Amino acid sequence: MRTQVAIIGGGPSGLLLSQLLMKAGISTVVLERKSRDYVLSRIRAGVLEQGMADLLREAGVAERMEREGHVHDGTNLSTAHGMFRVNFKERVGKSVIVYGQTEVTQDLYEAQDALGATIVHEADNVALHDVTTDKPYVTYEKDGQTHRLDCDYIAGCDGFHGVSRPTIPAEKRQEFERVYPFGWLGILSRTKPAAEELIYANHPRGFALASMRSDTLSRYYVQVPLTDKVEQWSDQAFWDELRRRLPDEVSQTMETGPSIEKSIAPLRSFVNEPMQWGRLFLVGDAAHIVPPTGAKGLNLAASDVHYLLEALKAAILDKDAGALDQYGPRALTRIWAAMRFSWWMTTLMHRFPDQTDFDQKIQEAELHQLETMESAQITMARNYVGLPY
Amino acid sequence: MRTQVAIIGGGPSGLLLSQLLMKAGISTVVLERKSRDYVLSRIRAGVLEQGMADLLREAGVAERMEREGHVHDGTNLSTAHGMFRVNFKERVGKSVIVYGQTEVTQDLYEAQDALGATIVHEADNVALHDVTTDKPYVTYEKDGQTHRLDCDYIAGCDGFHGVSRPTIPAEKRQEFERVYPFGWLGILSRTKPAAEELIYANHPRGFALASMRSDTLSRYYVQVPLTDKVEQWSDQAFWDELRRRLPDEVSQTMETGPSIEKSIAPLRSFVNEPMQWGRLFLVGDAAHIVPPTGAKGLNLAASDVHYLLEALKAAILDKDAGALDQYGPRALTRIWAAMRFSWWMTTLMHRFPDQTDFDQKIQEAELHQLETMESAQITMARNYVGLPY
Repeated sequence: MRTQVAIIGGGPSGLLLSQLLMKAGISTVVLERKSRDYVLSRIRAGVLEQGMADLLREAGVAERMEREGHVHDGTNLSTAHGMFRVNFKERVGKSVIVYGQTEVTQDLYEAQDALGATIVHEADNVALHDVTTDKPYVTYEKDGQTHRLDCDYIAGCDGFHGVSRPTIPAEKRQEFERVYPFGWLGILSRTKPAAEELIYANHPRGFALASMRSDTLSRYYVQVPLTDKVEQWSDQAFWDELRRRLPDEVSQTMETGPSIEKSIAPLRSFVNEPMQWGRLFLVGDAAHIVPPTGAKGLNLAASDVHYLLEALKAAILDKDAGALDQYGPRALTRIWAAMRFSWWMTTLMHRFPDQTDFDQKIQEAELHQLETMESAQITMARNYVGLPY
Repeated sequence: MRTQVAIIGGGPSGLLLSQLLMKAGISTVVLERKSRDYVLSRIRAGVLEQGMADLLREAGVAERMEREGHVHDGTNLSTAHGMFRVNFKERVGKSVIVYGQTEVTQDLYEAQDALGATIVHEADNVALHDVTTDKPYVTYEKDGQTHRLDCDYIAGCDGFHGVSRPTIPAEKRQEFERVYPFGWLGILSRTKPAAEELIYANHPRGFALASMRSDTLSRYYVQVPLTDKVEQWSDQAFWDELRRRLPDEVSQTMETGPSIEKSIAPLRSFVNEPMQWGRLFLVGDAAHIVPPTGAKGLNLAASDVHYLLEALKAAILDKDAGALDQYGPRALTRIWAAMRFSWWMTTLMHRFPDQTDFDQKIQEAELHQLETMESAQITMARNYVGLPY
């Protein structure tokens, strides 16, 4: 089999890249290790920046998002001294859209099907070969057979645990990492969301987040020690703890119900440099991980897709080979800005095990500044709605 | 001896408070442990916020500052990727004035002399008594005799090591503290300053600051390990190290010369709460210490003086006793904002012993945001020129 761009990973970044490349007349093959049902069952992010929404429009997969997604013009921050709102629309003229990653992926699969895309599911033992030559190829196993996919370029969209990043020799790359000393216990429930917009809560007992996927699907999180096991947390215990951390006026009216998903996720900041190795280009989680505070993960994958799309179009359609070398530096500038923002928001909102009374006062002073200083709100809003591509 | 307000400490905050109270018709006595010459020989801060400059004008001691002080409309930040300037005047319409604390103190002494102020120097073993009653008094020794000063109120302007703060019982107060794992090696030299405005440098070898007191008096600092001794640093070694950390274009033309003062200072953030204990009111370093990054120490003492002046005038002249209880809360809101700013600027600009490559990238991303985002510059400028009283 032969294609112009082999895409490793059939999650939202791989599918979006494939969709945009195909619409530009460039051929792709997507290799995904899991089944389509498995991919579509993953519960992930749900807040889309305007830049990502625009990219979905460009890809022709925005119709349902426009119809079912909820535009949020701001967000709420709850502190020891009450709750305040940062109005993105007023501060920077932009908003975000609440629309689940699962829905985005579903829409992309349907759009890819309509274009007749080649998406190979349950492709095992994917391996990348000769990526520093001009004749790279990919091998994989499916139904007991080994297959070979020849290509001009490889996009590594296969996430943090994928094969793409380790294909770059360890001595030729650098990893930057911060592991946070707590996790997020999250549940999904078929309940009316506690508020119209997200509530990020800084509370003495730990961080909490009231979020949602739709009018009838709520997503809530509480900060927990990394040693906690999900089995220790009954639904009742979760709701009780969440209520303690949210503002009274929210807790008192919040609808609760059985969880339909419950899990504990660790928080990590991670960047791999470089993003390019010969004809292999890392995209999204394959190259970087952010803690979920501020909802940058999926959006950052989308901006990578945008930069790589530009570079591949220039290289393939305009024969501008130099454009490919611009992918990494362009993507990384935006990645580090989002890393800083996620780190800042995580550090600002959580209780750390070694946090002193001084550190807590500094958090309060920073939140007070954010509440009272317009320029601080503008800086936060500009980052939250997404820096320009 | 009897007075309305006993002021412990004859540094700039004690003298400024005395001057402003006397001009309002309220009697004061200032007790200072050291001699006047000693007080005037201390080399300290040199950047005045507009609020402090206004307070000096109100006190009638601004004439020489207006003539000899240098207005700085911005500051420079040097990074691994070059130097950029934050233009305070353009961003927030305000500036700062470079004028040494030594000069401020000199001007205040002269103004106090002109008003016939009572300033007792070399007052030993100062002790505060009955501060929670309405008849507080102060005892001290001078020339082998014990003296008693009766008063209505006591202002504790006697610095971090003074007797005022420990007069509040340990179980009735809380200390918030962060000690930074490095010091500043500073020199004063009779040389032309390296640049017209300050240069704060974030450098792989550590922080550096190019500052000045006048056209002919320069003040430079380099971050050093806390284990360093000043004797280890020859003038030549200092200049060599400073040159490495400042931008090339500055290092190449920088004038050097013998140091006329050289010392190593630790960096600390410290706040004592409450600011009030009965009729005792803590002011400036007696209640809080900031690291020198961002030049907030003297300016914060000045805003304390402003709030305490307002409270004492209301209590004494308008018989509004409740005003006194407002002093602490009003002062502390501004103190914690300045604490946050000093901590932020210190954390942003220094190399920490345990700093990871990730932390360094976050510093770079924050500096990049500051260089490129107007709202981030406004937030910094607003804090640097001083928050409104």
